[in-house]
Amino acid sequence: MADHPNVLWIMADQLRFDYLSCYGHPHLHTPHIDALAARGVRFTNAYVQSPVCGPSRMSAYTGRYVRSHGSTWNGMPLRVGEPTLGDHLRAAGARAVLVGKTHMAADAEGMAWLGIDPKSEIGVRVSECGFEPFERDDGLHPNSPRQGWSAYDDYLVAQGFCSDNPWEDFANSGVSDSGERLSAWLLKNSRLPANVPEEHSETAYMTNRAMDFMREARSDGRPWMCHLSYIKPHWPYIVPAPYHAMYDETHIVPPVRSGSERETDHPLMQAYLAARVSQSFSRDHVRETVIPAYMGLIKQLDDNLGRLFAWMDETGLSKSTIVAFTSDHGDYMGDHWMGDKDFYHEMAVKVPLIIHDPRPDADSTRGNTSEALVEMIDLAPTFMAALGCPAKPHVIEGRDLTPLLHRTDGFSRRYAISEHDYHWSEMARQLKQPQDQAHTTMIFDGRWKFIRCEGFRPVLFDLETDPQELKDLGASEEDAHIAVRARMERALLDWATRHHTRITATPELLERQKLATEEGILIGFWDEEEFENVTGFPFSSLTPQGKPKD
Amino acid sequence: MADHPNVLWIMADQLRFDYLSCYGHPHLHTPHIDALAARGVRFTNAYVQSPVCGPSRMSAYTGRYVRSHGSTWNGMPLRVGEPTLGDHLRAAGARAVLVGKTHMAADAEGMAWLGIDPKSEIGVRVSECGFEPFERDDGLHPNSPRQGWSAYDDYLVAQGFCSDNPWEDFANSGVSDSGERLSAWLLKNSRLPANVPEEHSETAYMTNRAMDFMREARSDGRPWMCHLSYIKPHWPYIVPAPYHAMYDETHIVPPVRSGSERETDHPLMQAYLAARVSQSFSRDHVRETVIPAYMGLIKQLDDNLGRLFAWMDETGLSKSTIVAFTSDHGDYMGDHWMGDKDFYHEMAVKVPLIIHDPRPDADSTRGNTSEALVEMIDLAPTFMAALGCPAKPHVIEGRDLTPLLHRTDGFSRRYAISEHDYHWSEMARQLKQPQDQAHTTMIFDGRWKFIRCEGFRPVLFDLETDPQELKDLGASEEDAHIAVRARMERALLDWATRHHTRITATPELLERQKLATEEGILIGFWDEEEFENVTGFPFSSLTPQGKPKD
Repeated sequence: MADHPNVLWIMADQLRFDYLSCYGHPHLHTPHIDALAARGVRFTNAYVQSPVCGPSRMSAYTGRYVRSHGSTWNGMPLRVGEPTLGDHLRAAGARAVLVGKTHMAADAEGMAWLGIDPKSEIGVRVSECGFEPFERDDGLHPNSPRQGWSAYDDYLVAQGFCSDNPWEDFANSGVSDSGERLSAWLLKNSRLPANVPEEHSETAYMTNRAMDFMREARSDGRPWMCHLSYIKPHWPYIVPAPYHAMYDETHIVPPVRSGSERETDHPLMQAYLAARVSQSFSRDHVRETVIPAYMGLIKQLDDNLGRLFAWMDETGLSKSTIVAFTSDHGDYMGDHWMGDKDFYHEMAVKVPLIIHDPRPDADSTRGNTSEALVEMIDLAPTFMAALGCPAKPHVIEGRDLTPLLHRTDGFSRRYAISEHDYHWSEMARQLKQPQDQAHTTMIFDGRWKFIRCEGFRPVLFDLETDPQELKDLGASEEDAHIAVRARMERALLDWATRHHTRITATPELLERQKLATEEGILIGFWDEEEFENVTGFPFSSLTPQGKPKD
Repeated sequence: MADHPNVLWIMADQLRFDYLSCYGHPHLHTPHIDALAARGVRFTNAYVQSPVCGPSRMSAYTGRYVRSHGSTWNGMPLRVGEPTLGDHLRAAGARAVLVGKTHMAADAEGMAWLGIDPKSEIGVRVSECGFEPFERDDGLHPNSPRQGWSAYDDYLVAQGFCSDNPWEDFANSGVSDSGERLSAWLLKNSRLPANVPEEHSETAYMTNRAMDFMREARSDGRPWMCHLSYIKPHWPYIVPAPYHAMYDETHIVPPVRSGSERETDHPLMQAYLAARVSQSFSRDHVRETVIPAYMGLIKQLDDNLGRLFAWMDETGLSKSTIVAFTSDHGDYMGDHWMGDKDFYHEMAVKVPLIIHDPRPDADSTRGNTSEALVEMIDLAPTFMAALGCPAKPHVIEGRDLTPLLHRTDGFSRRYAISEHDYHWSEMARQLKQPQDQAHTTMIFDGRWKFIRCEGFRPVLFDLETDPQELKDLGASEEDAHIAVRARMERALLDWATRHHTRITATPELLERQKLATEEGILIGFWDEEEFENVTGFPFSSLTPQGKPKD
């Protein structure tokens, strides 16, 4: 494995693709991420497999579609036995290490059935999505069902930030002039500086922990893939000084929206628009309060990445480490009259993706952009290939991006897929969609974005004539649109009927199954003569089991 | 559990639905199976989820479609962690016991990853499809990769039938006049009597073993579901005396076929017709040799079931035991110019299904037939309900048949689904279908049978106007047929995009996920006032985690 690079896989949470200067933001300058793009490849059409944290990440960590791994919503456990990137890398002798967030929920029932102790080495791995947890922190609530008291909570207390909930009281609150704590759960408090100095914030802390890991890994010696997974710029939207004051209304890009979108006749779209979070972010004063904080969080992330990359340069790690930077989904921020994420407009489902491969084979693509249609599930096979792990086409549904990094042939994709399960949502109840029918699927070919909505008509956007996705053609009676919808439905059926779960079909097994005769399954032979004519050897030369005698 | 009946689930292998007198065979009289139908419900539209042993059985044993459990072909291991009927029953305090064949292949790789010892109690269960193996015997080859030397081989040796392969040399061979062993792998030998007395045949042996289990279970005391799974009338086609001589050419029903079927322009159908087994069974002398043996095997099975049912009557077990009788798929026997199984004509994909429920609630349906569209995966939830096991709609895809047994409301199904993976077949190579695209899916609404063929046009039969399925309407340009194909494709898409793998979504989890606010996820609230208006309690009454204070 000595010849293989290590991999640092950086993921931001809820970072829109277009809130980085290398992706065109006019006011938010992210020089360190831009510099990564300048020495790597920047992908302009990278799509996540679900526009929400949990399922998007489970897809990222398994290299498989949501319909395949079955963890369709936040907190829905990834089943025991679902193979992960970490499992594949470990089998090839490399470490898969977690620093930060996964949104993984452990499958306690599955472990109990299989007699796996959650505290055992295997149990910990199964509970951590296949990763070796160097630091696990999902943010949010030290006493929610999913996230217990964390090492970061300990850290805050050790720095003197003492409370029952230092995560919320310090890292995710501001303070009023009169000294009162003001929670960043309430959007009106987003412009306050967080109640913690920047160097003790979640972003800075996790950056430090990644460096801790990389230091430790040098003495360990095994090759590694480290998933540095930041909690921000995900809500609660609040950022420490000085970042809280860097941006104001004048730096906000106007919302992507049109009045006609509010006239939609589509019941599901009406429900999205009526949701409280959409109503909130449709108000100018909400956007003007939250977006500066969101921008500040991204700026802070960029500065921390600058610190990390400089340290990696100093220590020589940059030369031997593939660095990938991406996000698990975007954030509407009031675009299309919507808030948060959970649907498929570009700002929600498209993510930034930058990969710097230090190997000489990648010299010809440095600073390039790639318009190829790529999916988040492509990272797993890309990292597997980099670390010398055999391809596993019976399990991994993503496609190795190495050809796009090394300017060779071999990568192609006609459609990107993304899925969403809204069984949990108020919308499902309002629309009377049963919990098993409250789901949507996007299929996108680079121009047409077709969204199948179980129980409702589809939504369709033509990104060539309508790049802002303001005109839903899902009910258009134009022949061309009818034909496109039929074609996209057929492509979706092709995809949906594929072998998504045939994960025990190793290439060796498939090869062996072609040779039934050699295992003595001799169907349909009338007599010795026919047998000999077909197989080429005499029936009497077979053992009773049909195998040719040695 | 004392109030719950036990369940005896009898499965024949490769038994056509129409080779029983209660299903209309004019010459093959099966009075014992007919008597079961007379005291129970006989289903006339029962479909298997794959027209081949392994995947059909994995669906039967999991209550899930093939696309869901992923074991798409014989010998493809059922993945570790795929929940089975046995797992569900065990969790409810009942035993799930195997006597006979499952066609299960153990997922050795999955067990190794999860640290499960295949010899441990859990490992044995995982290797046996969730059953407690009282007797496991898949037939075929005591030294093939799947089936080792079996207890039945020991039994034969103990009875004096000594050989390296007593299964083949005695139970599945005949003997020539000159004393030479003649293998039943060659069809020409099918009319010989098997080289074993009837009382030591596979069918008799397995019947005895079921009685052994039921005797043992009485002293054990726990409620049980016993899967008595016969290997016959599956090939090799040979039956002991006197059954080998009971039927001849005069008892053979004419083949269901027409000359026009051989003119098909469908490449996949052409490949089916060209397969050796189809060529064989299209010849009259093959049918005339094999079908009498096949009929003899069924007659022998019926007699053994008569013996079993009489014993159950004597012991009183009949009064407390639900008896279900079915098959894993059918057999073409030359119909449609085809042999063996592997496609979706009625004689391959429809199976006999008879259920006798001794409970008084079923008195009103005794001797009835049901034309409801049912699937093999419906048995698992039916047995779970009978044994007092909670329904698990997030895992089980079949539907409880109890309403059809008790004449109550609650059962409905619009479509039956069946799938086939022919990656292993010579056809795939001839047609140049890649191993991951060599599959077909049937969707049947009771009238229209639509078969999606990946890479080719669909096949369509109208069973109302063409009950023999002699006219493929898959390329018909009639408007009505075009509309039916579009409707069936859409129904297939509905089915294919369902949550087939969301098996960790327990009802409790789904319920909890509706209540994000109670877990402190407070998205999109501007200020305290808005929070209080929406939630009904003051923001200050929440803990830092958002949960209302006690």
